Amino acid sequence: MNEEALEKFISLLRFNEDGLIPVVVQDYATGEVLTLAYMNKDAVLQTLNTGKAWYWRRSHRRLMMKGERSGRVQLVKEVRIDCDSDTLLILVEQVGGAACHEGYRSCFFRRLRGDGEIEICSERLFEPKEVYKE
Amino acid sequence: MNEEALEKFISLLRFNEDGLIPVVVQDYATGEVLTLAYMNKDAVLQTLNTGKAWYWRRSHRRLMMKGERSGRVQLVKEVRIDCDSDTLLILVEQVGGAACHEGYRSCFFRRLRGDGEIEICSERLFEPKEVYKE
Repeated sequence: MNEEALEKFISLLRFNEDGLIPVVVQDYATGEVLTLAYMNKDAVLQTLNTGKAWYWRRSHRRLMMKGERSGRVQLVKEVRIDCDSDTLLILVEQVGGAACHEGYRSCFFRRLRGDGEIEICSERLFEPKEVYKE
Repeated sequence: MNEEALEKFISLLRFNEDGLIPVVVQDYATGEVLTLAYMNKDAVLQTLNTGKAWYWRRSHRRLMMKGERSGRVQLVKEVRIDCDSDTLLILVEQVGGAACHEGYRSCFFRRLRGDGEIEICSERLFEPKEVYKE
């Protein structure tokens, strides 16, 4: 996509007061919702320029390519925009299978049971300690 | 769920500085992502007490049951919580088929094409003017 088209797309987006837009990340093949992340303008640009997902990591206060340490990058297959233009949905191929730093395919690996208890509803694909060593 | 269990669940959640938590809403049957909405504590309580989705509508600045005007309510089948406890994912049965006030099944009815243009990628199920008359 050329620079003009990129800028035109970005000008459509309604970033919040922190300059961020929430991004629902969905597995392209399975439809599973993997995570909710945030992009700033640069993250949108980097994502569209590279075809890999870049996010503004609020806890680290910096722009990061998803998987830059773990190799578990997300290849972006499609970008959708909601009716209010204040949320994105991206469909991705999750390299390595697991999107969550806790080792699960999805960050939404816990569900609320009818009795109020929380239970894990997904299989752990890797042991976080083995991947994030420092 | 009893009041104690409800309070325990709510105490797990990390609401943002505005007292809100983002909620990814996914169709239980099809896996389609319908919308991203926001709940405050009362919305979570009402949702869990009634089995129907209630949201804090930021544009209206009030708590609303989804579909209270249109009848297009969302019956909540499952509630998931992410690894950081700052986002919910709810799986719903969308009564009437369309979640979006624009008449589409999903609020994410527009996609970015490779050439930078935006195209509609979903079928319109109702004409908004016919439903929201006032």
